[in-house]
Formats: sequence, C-alpha cells, structure tokens
Amino acid sequence: MSMTTLDLARDLIARNSVTPDDAGCQAMMAEFLTARGFDITPLPFGEVSNLWARRGDSGPLFVFAGHTDVVPTGPLEAWDSPPFEPTERDGWLYGRGAADMKGSLAAMLTAVDRFLATHPEPRGSIAFLITSDEEGPSVNGTVKVVEWLQAQGTRIDWCLVGEPSSSEQVGDVMKNGRRGSLSGELRIKGVQGHVAYPHLARNPVHQAAPALAELCATEWDAGNDHFPPTTFQISNVQAGTGANNVIPGELMLLFNFRYSTESDADGLKRRVHELLDRHALEYELDWTHSGAPFLTPAGELVEAARAAVRERCGFEAQLSTAGGTSDGRFIAPTGAQVLELGPVNATIHKVNECVRCDDLERLSVLYETILTKLLA
Amino acid sequence: MSMTTLDLARDLIARNSVTPDDAGCQAMMAEFLTARGFDITPLPFGEVSNLWARRGDSGPLFVFAGHTDVVPTGPLEAWDSPPFEPTERDGWLYGRGAADMKGSLAAMLTAVDRFLATHPEPRGSIAFLITSDEEGPSVNGTVKVVEWLQAQGTRIDWCLVGEPSSSEQVGDVMKNGRRGSLSGELRIKGVQGHVAYPHLARNPVHQAAPALAELCATEWDAGNDHFPPTTFQISNVQAGTGANNVIPGELMLLFNFRYSTESDADGLKRRVHELLDRHALEYELDWTHSGAPFLTPAGELVEAARAAVRERCGFEAQLSTAGGTSDGRFIAPTGAQVLELGPVNATIHKVNECVRCDDLERLSVLYETILTKLLA
Repeated sequence: MSMTTLDLARDLIARNSVTPDDAGCQAMMAEFLTARGFDITPLPFGEVSNLWARRGDSGPLFVFAGHTDVVPTGPLEAWDSPPFEPTERDGWLYGRGAADMKGSLAAMLTAVDRFLATHPEPRGSIAFLITSDEEGPSVNGTVKVVEWLQAQGTRIDWCLVGEPSSSEQVGDVMKNGRRGSLSGELRIKGVQGHVAYPHLARNPVHQAAPALAELCATEWDAGNDHFPPTTFQISNVQAGTGANNVIPGELMLLFNFRYSTESDADGLKRRVHELLDRHALEYELDWTHSGAPFLTPAGELVEAARAAVRERCGFEAQLSTAGGTSDGRFIAPTGAQVLELGPVNATIHKVNECVRCDDLERLSVLYETILTKLLA
Repeated sequence: MSMTTLDLARDLIARNSVTPDDAGCQAMMAEFLTARGFDITPLPFGEVSNLWARRGDSGPLFVFAGHTDVVPTGPLEAWDSPPFEPTERDGWLYGRGAADMKGSLAAMLTAVDRFLATHPEPRGSIAFLITSDEEGPSVNGTVKVVEWLQAQGTRIDWCLVGEPSSSEQVGDVMKNGRRGSLSGELRIKGVQGHVAYPHLARNPVHQAAPALAELCATEWDAGNDHFPPTTFQISNVQAGTGANNVIPGELMLLFNFRYSTESDADGLKRRVHELLDRHALEYELDWTHSGAPFLTPAGELVEAARAAVRERCGFEAQLSTAGGTSDGRFIAPTGAQVLELGPVNATIHKVNECVRCDDLERLSVLYETILTKLLA
C-alpha cells in the first residue's frame, strides 16, 4: 500500500511542532526515507532537531530543503477546525503548516518515492536537509547543518526549498533569490532639560530630523533585472518621558534595509555612518546582519523547474526575489543553485491556513519531474 | 507683641499644604489681615481653597498675589531636616515652601502691617489674592478668582506676585512678563505593513521626517527687547510595535511652544497646520493653550519696584521674562500691571529648599517700600 501526498501531509500536520519542537515529524520522514535507501543523520543543535538524509555517494547532489516547525496558531477560537487536526473541507486541507510547509515535505517524499520506483539507479545523489528552526531564531537550524556539511566537504549542486512560493496556482511563481536584510539600532544622544530653557539642553529629535529626512529620501541603489531597489524602513522611534515639559535626552530608532545584489552590507553601513557623521550627530549604532542577498539567475536547476512547470501546468513560471528571508540565504553562499518552489502562500501564518488537496499531488509531480530532468 | 516675618514663615511652613491642600494657611493669613482691617472672602472651588482679602473701597487697587500650596517633598530621607518642620541652620530657614512661596507670603503680611501702622489711611485699596492651586492643574485657583473679580466689576491696577524671581540676591531679578505656552499632540497617519513589502504600506516616520526637519529649523519670530525668540521643542516621539519587521501605522509627537509677544497662539497654530498640509501629511492635531504671554513693560508698578530695590538694596534690578509660567498669566489679561518679585529661587522644588533668614526681612522692606511709593 502506498501513502498519498495527502496522507503524509495529514500525518505531519497532526504533529504540534511549533518552533523549535519537531514533534516527531523528522522521525516519520526518516523512516519513510530509510525504506527508500537513504542514510539518516540526525543533527540536533540545542533544542532544534535537524535531519540530513542522503541516498547515493556520487555527484551531482540534489537536496530538498525545508522545515518541520510551524508558527504559533494564534487564537484557537478563530480557527474553523483545530489547527493540529488536519481537516478536509470542499477540496481544501486545513491545518497549521498545511502550506508552510508540511504539504511541501509530503510532496517531496512522494516525489522521491515515485522517481526511485522508475529510476532505481539515478545518476548523482538525492538528500533532504530538514530543520525545526526556520520560523524561529534560525541559529541552530539550517545554518549549522550547512557548516557541518562544509566541514565534511559535502558540496550541494542543486537545492530545491519547499517554501510556499506560489501566488495563484502551484508553480506560477518560483523564487530564485532573496534580498539581504540588515538592521540597525540607533541611539542619538542629546542633553535632557526643561522645555522652558532649551538653551541649557540639546534636543536629539531636533538634531536628528534633517538626517532622518535625508536617510528616508536616499536612493540606495536602483535594483537590477532580478531585484527591486534596496529599501530602507524605520520601524520604531522613541523619545521622551511622557511629560510635555521635558526635552528628551535620547532618541532611539530601529531601522531595516532589504537590499539587492547591487548593494552590500558593509557599503550600506558605511553610507549610514557617513550621513550621520556629516550631520554631526552624537550616536551609538548597533548592526544586525540577518542575511546577504542571494541569486540563482540561471542554470540547470532553474531551467529544469521552468520546463517542469511548462510541461505539467501549461504556463510559464515567473521568477521572483520578493518577500522575506528564507533558509535559502544559508545554502546559497556555498555555491549551490537554490530555488524555492512550493504551494500557494495566501494563508501562511494566518488562521485557517490551508492548501488545495489537488495542489499537493501537483506539487509532487513537479518535484518528480525536476528530479527526472536532473538525475534520470 | 508683633510677629516677625521669620515667625510667620515658620508658621506657614509647618503646615503640610501640598497642592491642593491649604492646611489652614489661608485661615492664618485671614486672621492676621482681619486684625488690620481687611474684609475676608473665602472663594473655594472644588478641592481648592482661595482667599480674597481687601482693605478699602476706593481705587487704585494694589494686590499681593500668591499661593499657599507647595510641591511634594520628594524622598524624605534626602532632606537634612523634615520638610514640614521649619529649621534654622547657619542663617538659613529650611522647609518645603520656604522660597516658593511661604516666605513671600510672610513678607507681604509684615510689610502691610508696618505700612498701615505708619499710613493708617492710604489712598486706594490693598488686597490679597491667594490660592492653593498654583503648583497643580491651576484650574480652580487664580483663574476662577479673577473671573469672580471681573464679574464683580473689580479692576486690579497693580499686582505684585511673590514668586521667587531673584537669582543671587533678593531683588536682583524681577519678572515683568512671561512667555506664552502652547502644546500640540500630533498623530501622523500611515499604513502599517511588513518591512519586506514597503510598497503595500506607508511609513508615517518617513512621510513626517522632512516636515519635522522644517518645523525644527523654523524661526518663529526674532523676539523683542523683552522676550527671547519663540522656541519650539518636541518632547516626545513614538512609533512602532517594538518588532523590527513592521512598518508603523502611526507616528505620535508631543511638542511645545514657549512664545513671545511677537507671536500669538492662533498664528502659531496656523503656521504649523500650513506646514503639515504643505507636506501632504494625513494627521490629527490637538492643541492645548496653557497661557498667553504677558508683559508689563513700564508704568508705576515697575518704576516703584525698581526704585525700591535701588534705595534699599543699592543695585539695579534686572527685568526678565524667562522661565516657566506663573499665575501672572491669569491676572495680566485683565489689564493689570503685573510684576513678580520674591526670594532667590536656587532651591525651589528641590530637597532642602531654603531661604536666607535675613532675606525675609529684606523682602518685607522692599514690599513695604513699594506700597509706600504707590499708596502713601
């Protein structure tokens, strides 16, 4: 008896695996893959469960990457059915993780099952890189597994990430890169005082205002064919004690760059410091770099995926680099071609997250077709 | 037996009269004044005690204005002697209200006592306008008494406010006016969103930055011989949820004008709205007008006080309009000449508030001399 993609997705959704709890998802996947000739390496770091499963020793190496963890449910009473009880209604499968990304994991498993049934001796190797910390701090997940792989000398050629990339129909959008993310916590120093005696104080809000206006008006780059222009956004501003007669002693700002491959983190930092220094501000600035941008502009993986969508769906997939960050940012720097292809993302992170049941099989067929094009 | 200014100051300081509690101060003053021919009218409003005491029916009308309430003590352990136990040390009298302004009230009483002893039939009338709500909301205090006086058709010619105006020595600085105070609470509206998708949001911080830079750089007026230029200060700024990946939906600012007689509240409001509108901001703005500026540039009261300081202290008094607001703002609009003259203000609102014991008699002599010049 063979399990359908829907059966496997239901099995995974029934496990309450809010980050970093894997709740047995990887054990289920490992059992499935062991039966298909994979070697299993659990790679736990801290509270995070990670799985490396590989079939074959030779190159090229094709990797399915993904995560078993899900975001919290939000208010349970807002769900039409319990988030960890997979429920089918009107052709849709409901449950936390249905679209992000347990449906993709199920499709990867059945795709591999069918591919190996028809190609028991593929050229190269197939592997799974699975973590339970993609939705969380992302410290003990994919990044650590990649370090372990590099220490072993293992080089990934092609990496298909199962993130829900699609917009209206499965396969209509694939992500071949993501922007970088660089954050700053800026504290502009002034001298506190009474508003009646401004000559005895130094208002950091007043001092900062022209610099902020210039930061907000700056064009950091013009983007390129694959990336929109780099954006700068101030997310938080705070100054003052609440009293209306006190000039604040400090202005705190949080800001974030989402940046294209036309900029780099060091260059953006340098330009911000240059601007703040030119405005003669006294400040402290702490940077956090969440990830450099990556891009897989062309190559066998993108071509195989585009052809698979063309053949199986009858339309052209659109390539995109929009949206938030993903674990692809940790894999791309190794030199791997990285592509994200998964179900429609309309309901991810929301209540009543769902995926169309038919889309699960469609996605599995796309994955199988890509494997066939690359490894048959 | 006659009470000294020091005795009366000690009696008042011993009463714990934190706003709005008068703690019997006005009853003590009323008893003293009744014995010198004054008619007493208590004018309580809400929790606030007010006293109107007048001697004589004819004009001109000279008014001593002041308050019996004091600000809170702050931490008791920081005081070298209990704040409501008047204590003399090394020629200084310590206690909450010693300088602001129970010392002044005592000096007013003894000045009137001596003046009437030598001038039992002065021209015009002498009155006291005393409140227990100068340090608090200032809603049921002087402003209500002034309304009551105006309803009665009573017109004040000269008003001497006992606020601690002096800087180094009693009489070195007198305040012949105060700046106006106008506050605004500004809410600039945006559209909340994810920092990765700024095209779907509208960041109110970014939209506001050029307008804030312009507000901070604006010269509202150049001041004049009596007032420094109008100042604009942003006291509080807040935007954001704390999360670094959310574009805030609103930016809140509190700001305050301290403005000279070269500007007026309606004109300042109009200019702020014009500026915000020109920057095409969507906003809400609530105004609070705490007081118009007032000025008593010259006239009998100022001349009498300057002459008194010259004769009794041997130096020239400096006229000033600096500092915070005072109850003079409520009296000046009636057309009265208003002057503030009181002890050295170095310790007001602080722990170990104090006044030099000798300064109490000096101040009483100055008050008596002013009375003599105007009413003898």
